[in-house]
Formats: sequence, C-alpha cells, structure tokens
Amino acid sequence: MSGLLRSWVESANAPDADFPLNNLPYGVFSLDDETHRCGVALGAFVIDVAGLERAGHLAFQGTLQTGVWNDFMALGCDAWHDLRVALTALFAEGAEEGALQSFLIPLADVRLHMPFRVSEFTDFYASRHHATNVGTMFRGAENALPPNWLHIPIGYNGRASSVVVSGTDVRRPWGQVKSLEDDAPRFAPSAKFDIELELGAVVGQPSDGPLTVTEAFANIFGYVLLNDWSARDIQAWEYQPLGPFQSKATATSISPWIISSAALEPFRCAPPAREVPLLPHLQDDGPMTYDIALEVALQPEGGTETIIANTNASELYYSAAQQLAHHSACGCPMRAGDLLGSGTISGPTKSARGSMLELSWNGAEPFSINGGTRSFIEEGDTLTLRGHAKGQGYRIGFGECRGKVLPALPQKA
Amino acid sequence: MSGLLRSWVESANAPDADFPLNNLPYGVFSLDDETHRCGVALGAFVIDVAGLERAGHLAFQGTLQTGVWNDFMALGCDAWHDLRVALTALFAEGAEEGALQSFLIPLADVRLHMPFRVSEFTDFYASRHHATNVGTMFRGAENALPPNWLHIPIGYNGRASSVVVSGTDVRRPWGQVKSLEDDAPRFAPSAKFDIELELGAVVGQPSDGPLTVTEAFANIFGYVLLNDWSARDIQAWEYQPLGPFQSKATATSISPWIISSAALEPFRCAPPAREVPLLPHLQDDGPMTYDIALEVALQPEGGTETIIANTNASELYYSAAQQLAHHSACGCPMRAGDLLGSGTISGPTKSARGSMLELSWNGAEPFSINGGTRSFIEEGDTLTLRGHAKGQGYRIGFGECRGKVLPALPQKA
Repeated sequence: MSGLLRSWVESANAPDADFPLNNLPYGVFSLDDETHRCGVALGAFVIDVAGLERAGHLAFQGTLQTGVWNDFMALGCDAWHDLRVALTALFAEGAEEGALQSFLIPLADVRLHMPFRVSEFTDFYASRHHATNVGTMFRGAENALPPNWLHIPIGYNGRASSVVVSGTDVRRPWGQVKSLEDDAPRFAPSAKFDIELELGAVVGQPSDGPLTVTEAFANIFGYVLLNDWSARDIQAWEYQPLGPFQSKATATSISPWIISSAALEPFRCAPPAREVPLLPHLQDDGPMTYDIALEVALQPEGGTETIIANTNASELYYSAAQQLAHHSACGCPMRAGDLLGSGTISGPTKSARGSMLELSWNGAEPFSINGGTRSFIEEGDTLTLRGHAKGQGYRIGFGECRGKVLPALPQKA
Repeated sequence: MSGLLRSWVESANAPDADFPLNNLPYGVFSLDDETHRCGVALGAFVIDVAGLERAGHLAFQGTLQTGVWNDFMALGCDAWHDLRVALTALFAEGAEEGALQSFLIPLADVRLHMPFRVSEFTDFYASRHHATNVGTMFRGAENALPPNWLHIPIGYNGRASSVVVSGTDVRRPWGQVKSLEDDAPRFAPSAKFDIELELGAVVGQPSDGPLTVTEAFANIFGYVLLNDWSARDIQAWEYQPLGPFQSKATATSISPWIISSAALEPFRCAPPAREVPLLPHLQDDGPMTYDIALEVALQPEGGTETIIANTNASELYYSAAQQLAHHSACGCPMRAGDLLGSGTISGPTKSARGSMLELSWNGAEPFSINGGTRSFIEEGDTLTLRGHAKGQGYRIGFGECRGKVLPALPQKA
C-alpha cells in the first residue's frame, strides 16, 4: 500500500484530509452564476477541470464542459486513467504551479450538485447481518435469510428521479399503511421513516449483454455514500408480492463526490466467507469489496450530534461487481450513470447496524441519543453518513451525505 | 360518440383504417438517411410534422425537431391540444391540400423507432383476473389475491433501458433458476419464457409531488401496446422478498405509435365494480379506463399465425390515472417519458388470458396453435399484440407490438 502522494496544494497533505492527491474525486459545483461545472476535490479546494480543459491542460472531447460526469464516464476506462494521471502530474509536489492556481476554488465558496445524471437506480440487499436482522424481525430467526440470498445478490429497481444530492431536505412521505391493529388500511404520513446506510456504485462503461464479474468490476467508475430513505410502515403493507415501491421513492440521498475505483484500489478486500459456493457466473477472481469505515450521525433540530452507528463496507457479502454481473445476466443493457446501491450495511454488533429499524429493533428497543431516544426519524432530525478508507499517512474520504427531514405536507384536497 | 372525421387523405377514411383523422398517433420514423423525425400517422401515410414545423405550418418551440416526443410532451396539455387541432384542420376533408402533399410519406417507406425516450419504466398488476389466476396457481384459490390488492394498485419499478420498439428481436435470457426438483440453483436459459399483454401509459406532464387522480389523468399523454417479456422460472426463484428483477429485464416491447388520450376520449369506461371502496386519494371522479379490444397472436418460425388470446382493456381494475396518483403519493417526482405498464390484462374466460403462464396454467394444460401446442415460447416464435377501440364508422388502431424470440446466446467463459 503506497503512502501519501504529496501535492503543492498544502491542505491536501494533512493526514486527516478527505481529499489528498491520492483521492481526486469527481463532483459538480457552481459559483454565483449557477452554471454547473465539473470539478475534482483536492484538499480545501475544487479543481475547475472544465476550465482546465478549455485552457488546453486537459483534452477529453469536451465532456468536461457538460456540467455532469456521464459523458466523460462513457468514454471508458482509458479516459478515466488518463485524467487521473494528468491531474496527478499537474498537482504533484514540485510541479509548476503558476498558471494552475487560478483553477483552484475554495470548497467553502462553491455549491455542490448531483455529480452525474442517474440513468437508473438499482438497490441491492447484500449485507448478511442486515438481511439476517430484518428477516429475524419479520419472519423469525429460523427463516431469517431468504432461500435465494446465499446464491444471488438480490436486488430491485428503485426510482432514479428521486435521487438527490447531500444537503437536500427530505419531506416525510404520505402513504397507505395498515398495522396489525388496523381493521382497514389508512392513508397517513409515515410513522416509521428511516435511513439506510449504503455504498452506491456508479456504472461508467455502458454494456449491452451479460458481463462477467471481472468485466463488471472494470465498468464501475466509482462510489458514493448513499442513504436510501425508507418508510417501513408503507413498505410492510405494499411489498408483497412485487417488492418495495412507494416506501423507497420519496428520496435517496448521495454524497456529492464520486470516489473513483482507482483511488480505492489499495483498499480492496475479500468478502466474508461463503457459506455455499457461488455459481461460476457470480464468482470473483480476486478481492472486490473495500475496507471503508462508515458512520451514521443523528442531530435533532437545535441539538447536538450523536454517532448512532459505525460499520464497514467490508461487511458486504456481494461486491458491486457481482451485483452488476447479476444485473446484466439476462441481457439487461446497462448505461453510464446507472447507480447500484449496496443495500444497508450492518455489522455483527448492535452499534454496527445501518438502519434505525435494526438499531431500535422495529421500535421495541429505542436507542439513546444526546438528550433523548429514537426509534425512527423525528421531525427536524438531520441524518449524516460519513465514510473513509485509511491508508498509510493519508485517507480517502467520501465527504458527507446529509439530509434533514421536514414534516409531511398537508394532504391535498 | 362522434363519427369519422373525414380527411382529404382517402386511405384514412376506410372504416377499418387504424389511423383515421380521429386518431393522429405520435411516432418517430426514419428514411434512408437514418435521421429520426417526429411523425403522426394518417391512413397509409406518416405526416412529417418535423417538416411541417420547419415550414411554418406548426410552431412548438422546435420540440418537433428533436427526433423524440419527450420535449413536446413536457410542453404540457395545452400544446398537446393545439397540435391536434392544427393537424385536424390541415388534413380535414375540404382543407387546402396543395402544399401539404409533400409532407405525407407512405408508411411502407419508413422505418419506425422508439417514439419517446423512456425516462423510467414502472409495471403494475391491475387486472383482477390475471392476479387471481396467478395467485391461484402459486398460493391456492383461497389466497389468490394479496391482502393489499383491492386497496392499492400494486406496482414495481422495471428497467427502462430494456424497453424496445416493436420489431426488435428478443433473445431468450439466461438466469438463475431452481425448480422444485433441483437440489441447488442452476444458471440456465429460461425454459419458461413468456409474454404479458399490457397497455402502457406514457406520462407527458412532469410533476414533483403528490397528484390527485384527476390531476394524474390530465398528465397522461397517451398509450401504447406493451409486451413485458417475462422469464417465469427466473422470477419464481428471485422474487422473494424484493420482487421481480432479472426475470423482467431482458426486454419490454412497445408499439411504435403513442395513441393520445384525446383520441381515446370517446372510449372511456368505468372500471369493474369495486369490492371494497378505495381510500379517497385513489378514488376517480369519472370513467378513466378504456374500451379497447386486444389480441395476442403467435406465429411459429415458418408457420401460420394463431390468435391465442382476446381480451379488453376495460378489464383493468385500476386506471393508469389511479396508478400514477399512487406512484406520486410519497412525493416521487414523475418525468415526461415515464412509462407505466398496466399489468397483464386477462378477462374472465380462458381465451381471454394475457399470458402463456395463464393460457397453459403454468404448463399443466398446453394450448393448441396451428400445427402444434404451446406451454411457453419456443425458439423462433413471433408474438404480436394488436389493439383498437371501435367507434361509429371508424376505429382508433394501435398498430402492432411484435417481437421474435431468438435462441439464448452461448454462455460467456
């Protein structure tokens, strides 16, 4: 594992910096004129790569001028490599910095936007501890894991139009619910609104037929933090027999920086031991999950923050590459900008659970926060996901994925 | 119900013409230069509306120049009305036809393409006979309808990238399957590949919050025939607990002409009687389903066609407006080009079943075709959906939704 790549941008060299030269994550920012520009984070700055391309320092067929990363991603992995090499050379310690200073904009001065246009959003269910916890709650310990769970990375299609960038407020949804006490269903604001701590994989290279796991791994451009806001009471009533639908369609928040697969390369790790071997089309040929520390913070309106969960992406039983291979197995075309959620990531301990459903055991065991308790989200709560991979003397930070929950709107007449 | 609107384009006045002046369906065509152009069908011709806009006969902010109907749809229902009024005036019997002849291109000379870019695809489950048949097969007659079925239009998100236009060949998919006789799952070509006869609603007007049923009705631009190709054996193994995924992602075929809600207005009809009242947010304020006769034809490679099913869209328990209202209830943003499949449409009789799963009762009762029998699709079979609404002296035809099934590809190494 190599150490810190030093940059002439000093703030990038701090051991706790999220965005050292090793990282170079992809985002979209705007200044006062509200134009969306492609940028790359470095230390306390965003590199205006759209400007660098116009000035002739970079050449990627104008894809950096589009205000979104989709067209660049679709150029394929050679372009991804070339941009990383070019930026590393331009901003490395010792490189000529004179003309480049003007392309550095303080992060504090920019507004961040969706880094890519989500083509379609798929959400998986790949953490064994999460699936076991939820299965135990609703079907009992002996039937916790569905029969197919150890054989395929179970997933469902989500709703791309509901994906928003970190910092966007989220409205508590209305929906049809029917609890065990109800004689008939009711239409009401969700009383069990929840988070899901996930990693999102961004497909960069389009494809039109079945992919091997190795091909799929190469097609993934990078990763974001992902919070799949979930209305548990709506889900319980709607999900049989065709799966979650409106319970998952209010919003899914993502962090604003796509952390490239290249930056995460030193942190690849093997998945948990397989209880049964996978069929050949889903077998990996090396470690394809990542050692990424993850946490969830909850801050009530006007209160102080509590870290309510700590876990690690290495808990995932299936890698994003395996999920993408499975996704394409039937011939399903995949597009640049497809977003694959890992599924809620929970670890073996109680404090490593990635949803409030698990943390409070569906409300039966409310958990403590500074100045109170919680079972599910209350009005005005801000939920924040954070994550980083820890190298020798540097870290690859994801930044934050944050959202505040506002009260439900009054019902339409 | 008004009668035929006569046109100076004589082929549009035949009583059995699919595309009289009353219809004016929206499509996208190309000639030898392969440029995609917006067109409207009339009799045996396509009206080059992109050309009409360039020549100043129409003015819709250049949206007819985009080679796809999404931008026009997003202009909203006033524009939809204005285009229909303008075309009706230009092509009515007695109108000045001189300069317009050059904008009429024989349908026989064009190639048809996807009429719109599918933003996202949602598939519902709104035919009671279909849900009852499937439920009876897999859960027994006493548990046929899921408990939520009479209260919400159950739906799931499908895969937009897999939607193709009529005439596109479809490859039999590979997938993971496990039958009752299998000790362990296998990866194999689907042995139960099937059709689903559906109507697809095309959302035209975008929205960002909950819609009433009345608002939702007004936001629907039009309808297409839709065949949601389905791998029943893959579905059976994968669908618990998160719903259908790869079983539905190989392809969904649609007919090339969007039949406008305006053209179907005379054919609105009331849904089947409600067994239990719907909650207020899902109640309609008038008839919102349609009387549209539908059929499915099967033609083996080198053989002759058999009509294997006849049914009617009036069998749908939930209208597309109710589905769209439900879809938006949690605040889910809807986009121009969202496609909502009705779910398989089956009627009360055996010959009115809209899938081979139902027609052959999951293979237990193979049905007859000219020169053979079928349980599910065999190699080289061409499946064609057709539909029309019947007025006084005219019909609103949908054209065809056709696809031929090719053998599965060899497995990748």
